[in-house]
Amino acid sequence: MTGNKEQAALPQPAAQQVGYAVIGLGKLTLEELLPAFAVGRASRLAAVVSGNLTEAREAALAYGLSADDAYSYDDFEKLGERDDVHAVYIVLPNSLHREYTERAAKIGKHVLCEKPLATSVEDAEAMVKACKDAGVLLMTAYRCQYTPHHWAAREAVQSGRLGQVKLLHSVNVQIEPNEGQWRLKRKLAGGGSLPDVGLYCVNTVRFLLGEEPCEVSGTVHSTPGDERFTEVEESVTWQMRFPSGVVAQCACSYGAATARTIDVFGTGGRLAIDPAFDYQNLRLTVQTGQEVTEVRVPPEDQFRLETDHFSRCIQEGRAPYTPGEEGLQDQKIMEAIYRSAREGGRPVTLERFEGRDVFRGPAPERS
Amino acid sequence: MTGNKEQAALPQPAAQQVGYAVIGLGKLTLEELLPAFAVGRASRLAAVVSGNLTEAREAALAYGLSADDAYSYDDFEKLGERDDVHAVYIVLPNSLHREYTERAAKIGKHVLCEKPLATSVEDAEAMVKACKDAGVLLMTAYRCQYTPHHWAAREAVQSGRLGQVKLLHSVNVQIEPNEGQWRLKRKLAGGGSLPDVGLYCVNTVRFLLGEEPCEVSGTVHSTPGDERFTEVEESVTWQMRFPSGVVAQCACSYGAATARTIDVFGTGGRLAIDPAFDYQNLRLTVQTGQEVTEVRVPPEDQFRLETDHFSRCIQEGRAPYTPGEEGLQDQKIMEAIYRSAREGGRPVTLERFEGRDVFRGPAPERS
Amino acid sequence: MTGNKEQAALPQPAAQQVGYAVIGLGKLTLEELLPAFAVGRASRLAAVVSGNLTEAREAALAYGLSADDAYSYDDFEKLGERDDVHAVYIVLPNSLHREYTERAAKIGKHVLCEKPLATSVEDAEAMVKACKDAGVLLMTAYRCQYTPHHWAAREAVQSGRLGQVKLLHSVNVQIEPNEGQWRLKRKLAGGGSLPDVGLYCVNTVRFLLGEEPCEVSGTVHSTPGDERFTEVEESVTWQMRFPSGVVAQCACSYGAATARTIDVFGTGGRLAIDPAFDYQNLRLTVQTGQEVTEVRVPPEDQFRLETDHFSRCIQEGRAPYTPGEEGLQDQKIMEAIYRSAREGGRPVTLERFEGRDVFRGPAPERS
Amino acid sequence: MTGNKEQAALPQPAAQQVGYAVIGLGKLTLEELLPAFAVGRASRLAAVVSGNLTEAREAALAYGLSADDAYSYDDFEKLGERDDVHAVYIVLPNSLHREYTERAAKIGKHVLCEKPLATSVEDAEAMVKACKDAGVLLMTAYRCQYTPHHWAAREAVQSGRLGQVKLLHSVNVQIEPNEGQWRLKRKLAGGGSLPDVGLYCVNTVRFLLGEEPCEVSGTVHSTPGDERFTEVEESVTWQMRFPSGVVAQCACSYGAATARTIDVFGTGGRLAIDPAFDYQNLRLTVQTGQEVTEVRVPPEDQFRLETDHFSRCIQEGRAPYTPGEEGLQDQKIMEAIYRSAREGGRPVTLERFEGRDVFRGPAPERS
Repeated sequence: MTGNKEQAALPQPAAQQVGYAVIGLGKLTLEELLPAFAVGRASRLAAVVSGNLTEAREAALAYGLSADDAYSYDDFEKLGERDDVHAVYIVLPNSLHREYTERAAKIGKHVLCEKPLATSVEDAEAMVKACKDAGVLLMTAYRCQYTPHHWAAREAVQSGRLGQVKLLHSVNVQIEPNEGQWRLKRKLAGGGSLPDVGLYCVNTVRFLLGEEPCEVSGTVHSTPGDERFTEVEESVTWQMRFPSGVVAQCACSYGAATARTIDVFGTGGRLAIDPAFDYQNLRLTVQTGQEVTEVRVPPEDQFRLETDHFSRCIQEGRAPYTPGEEGLQDQKIMEAIYRSAREGGRPVTLERFEGRDVFRGPAPERS
Repeated sequence: MTGNKEQAALPQPAAQQVGYAVIGLGKLTLEELLPAFAVGRASRLAAVVSGNLTEAREAALAYGLSADDAYSYDDFEKLGERDDVHAVYIVLPNSLHREYTERAAKIGKHVLCEKPLATSVEDAEAMVKACKDAGVLLMTAYRCQYTPHHWAAREAVQSGRLGQVKLLHSVNVQIEPNEGQWRLKRKLAGGGSLPDVGLYCVNTVRFLLGEEPCEVSGTVHSTPGDERFTEVEESVTWQMRFPSGVVAQCACSYGAATARTIDVFGTGGRLAIDPAFDYQNLRLTVQTGQEVTEVRVPPEDQFRLETDHFSRCIQEGRAPYTPGEEGLQDQKIMEAIYRSAREGGRPVTLERFEGRDVFRGPAPERS
Repeated sequence: MTGNKEQAALPQPAAQQVGYAVIGLGKLTLEELLPAFAVGRASRLAAVVSGNLTEAREAALAYGLSADDAYSYDDFEKLGERDDVHAVYIVLPNSLHREYTERAAKIGKHVLCEKPLATSVEDAEAMVKACKDAGVLLMTAYRCQYTPHHWAAREAVQSGRLGQVKLLHSVNVQIEPNEGQWRLKRKLAGGGSLPDVGLYCVNTVRFLLGEEPCEVSGTVHSTPGDERFTEVEESVTWQMRFPSGVVAQCACSYGAATARTIDVFGTGGRLAIDPAFDYQNLRLTVQTGQEVTEVRVPPEDQFRLETDHFSRCIQEGRAPYTPGEEGLQDQKIMEAIYRSAREGGRPVTLERFEGRDVFRGPAPERS
Repeated sequence: MTGNKEQAALPQPAAQQVGYAVIGLGKLTLEELLPAFAVGRASRLAAVVSGNLTEAREAALAYGLSADDAYSYDDFEKLGERDDVHAVYIVLPNSLHREYTERAAKIGKHVLCEKPLATSVEDAEAMVKACKDAGVLLMTAYRCQYTPHHWAAREAVQSGRLGQVKLLHSVNVQIEPNEGQWRLKRKLAGGGSLPDVGLYCVNTVRFLLGEEPCEVSGTVHSTPGDERFTEVEESVTWQMRFPSGVVAQCACSYGAATARTIDVFGTGGRLAIDPAFDYQNLRLTVQTGQEVTEVRVPPEDQFRLETDHFSRCIQEGRAPYTPGEEGLQDQKIMEAIYRSAREGGRPVTLERFEGRDVFRGPAPERS
């Protein structure tokens, strides 16, 4: 079977692609990132860094690299000698993001850092500064801001297809098992369900609206006696108000069966993505009048889109769509939510920003 | 085409059915209640009361009554002479519920009253007392507590099919046009979107859980300059906490396109009714693991189920499932939500109740 | 709760409505038709005729008639004396349709006859002639030609929203239990699944297209040894070709779990109704490009729409949309399908007709 | 972000993977196969063969090969010298499948051949023989027999979850544009919509049932005057009967908007895959009683599953699940459908086979 090849886009020649060192060999790296690099159009895997050198070598060999492309954390700085490594992708526990960003900046590598950007506003600010000072790009790996379904939703929201938006709901809950996970340690994770899964709600609501919230209030909940939640919170429910009058009610949890949703309610209709934050099979529905339309957006590998965007920014010397500043702003919002919760749920005011998409770079290419 | 008739249940002979006087000839009465009485199994229309006697007569004749079965509001007490009128169904602006309940009790008629039961806790308490003193039954017309889809959802929640419930979301929004509607007048309606549509969220969450909230917090929103919302609020977002630890986030509005939803998130799965509060075509979905199941509950006329339940309570001398006390409790919760909103969103504590379904009568028959 | 009443349409005064005698007290009558008459806008129940006079009286009393409004089959002709009985609705085993149509015509009553119109082309022709000669109207009770979802589908098909239609699929299958049902007796039913459930496929395909098939071929299947199918067939699969080139593949069965579907495939999109032939909760979906839209047509009581249409035809002296001729044409098509099956599946040619909707009367009102 | 890595399976070390030469650089190769090889767990791209050497080199470089890994058709036999090329994947116009299979067998390479296996039974038989004689494996690239959704459907069918299957419907239609496509040339394609898209219906029905049809009948349709269909047919509708009594009605076309469906109707329920044959986003629904369940099977790259299966067969020296014989059987069925159509739609009897899955090898691993 063959056919017309007009639409088919070949990747860039491998030798021209941006080479990445992936730092951290967890499930996300093994199951999503390494396969995504394998089909990258402007991105390729060039090195693997892990605390376990044997595993790093296995991963390298499985993806066509040599054993010499595997590094231990201690050898991280040796990447500085590798001209074919242009960027690092940090996929480590949250509390290590700052350290590795700073080390990467120091050896002149661009940084793609998993979300949340950091475990504090202070760390996030330091990371932005370190990259700026070193003249390298810093991008927060906000996959959902590069996903076709989310862009289609954003266009439905911003084009007026739903009329004037009034209300959003977003939920991101999952069961976090008690397995000595670093996610349940405050020192490593910086928080519980909020920075891990609730962040998707914060970030996606901001992305869809293009606005920044001016006030938040929140409540924190943990099941009494549940040993998983002695250091970090199980659940957070919170509300964000925007200058335009839009209100978003959100909830995240480590204690409920997986559900990832976003709902937008406007004067002219409503929109839902459900599942909203999964790696695959997102579903976008728009309801206006008596028509409920599923928009079957052709799916793409979200991780490939994200990394290829950063690669093109590196190749072309432009700011990424979700730079460090974008991650920093979410850090500020999350801190305000926690503060409100500590203060009995009273509303906390946030800095007001004029304009739209104030922390974002130029819109990414769409393929 | 004929078939086996085993399943078919005939209505009671018309002469044995409970006779109702319907008070108020608005759209709900004309489009839903009169047709529902026409297919009542234990209920029949016996009289029509309206401010416009001509319209009342037209309605009476259209449904097989005589012109003598039509009454003006002033003649309401003449119903006392009608032995074939056993009950009144009050479908008037909220602020008149108390007056007509008291007048009905005085002439010895049972009272089915539209929701919200009243415009204040004080009025609701007076109504409960008036009916009790007069020895007549009082039922709050909470249609959704008699609806097969809602019962199927309640069973899914309470049977543990979803594991332990952690979170609920419920939205009830619609556009309320500016047409001199009594709903937009504080004196007549007692409030804005909360007592009208938000009440569904409050009441259904309580019904699904069988628990009473112990704390609420809320915020009120109205679009600045929108003339519809000078007397009553456009939107309310609120949160209810329950003794079991469950949290419900809810929103209602008069300013967004129709959406009526309820979502339940548990440790073992999730459940949605969407649309949740419509008169027809409710959809119930249960998701556990990788199976998303729509439970196609055979639909029934919700208004018929509700009125037939009250009729059987009257015939058998038992308490209705949603007596006045059930409506009174919602009135208390709504007042607490408003109070929280006035006080900047701080949580307001509610009286704690032991046991389940504390304000409800015996479970209703299901057909 | 009251509201604006502009949209609400009251039924005609009961005294002006067309009065019906329902002949046959099976499940369809008890569960669907009697409730539909109770909410009729131009139609009311005036008499009940059954082989079991006790049951007839019970039904009469349950729906507000008197015991005198109940008749036995032998007393059928006494309806001739009832000026308030304008029409009869025949809901008897298929083989009795002709006899009762002729008896009704003889006493000057209009006839609404359940589908299939008859058990042979010859009978159907005799029924058309008897009514014509007697100057009474004859309507085949094709519920689906009065159903909002089917009209919305017809408009999608005929408006070109799907481009040029190329292919249709329609399935109507259900399990017919072995309970001495008249449906499994050839003499009473005239055939098996084809005239009972397969007829929906034949009739709906013709309705959607507005064309008449010019060729059919079919195959009959019965499970060897299944005692239900000694007299009539279990299943039929057949194909209909239309002058425009459209092809329809259809299947009906008494041996598979309930499924009732219609699918239309065109050059520009596709359409599905699934379930297609149920009394409630039909779902209409239109797919064009990457949008799959459920059109949530507001539901109506299908039986009320059908009877009210016939009532208005009687009141206004016009031909019904689905007169006897419409039922006769389906009879001819079904006989051709059976003939093809007997002849090893070879195609059987049908008479060609010019024009559209050649057997139908003026389009019905839509409410 | 990292996590537990237990589930993550690394690909085999690249050096141990089966190396493929892909023959033909059409849209399928560029958009699907080359990316699938990039994430292969037991498969890797080793060479590219095309009529256009420049394009072949571009593709090679884009996927990390060197310019020397690109070959012209004339140089095909040079692959014989490549020890790291273990198999060829033939993605050429149908009429060339035989030639390249025979050439590959001659140089000792295993053959994975796109569907349809050939353009005639005679060619298909020759291909099976050539590979057998040469001691190389031959696999027909029936992607859908390696797809999780299709396996879940097969299990639902064969486990009895639907009761006893009675009827299947399958549709595969799309618009084939008139662009000098080889698909519209009889000499190159061997037929029209049947061998290209209709083959999915034939093959998937057989796969789900595990049975071989014993009788087929069919009709061929082309729009008069449509220049695309002067050599090959536009549409085919056909029926297949199976020894168990199951009947399948199928349709394929080059003239209707994309629709790819399979429906199974049993005594206990029904099942649908819709879309059924797409590369992504398949949806599997099972309906039993009043529950309609979407089974959200975790998606996998179908092409990767298919090629990795063949690789493991090569590595372990076992027969593929869909060997040449499986493709040959479909060729025989398609020829019988065409024969029936030429003979006016009369049923054509096929050879009967005892047992289940008679042409298939051992069931494939599922990841």
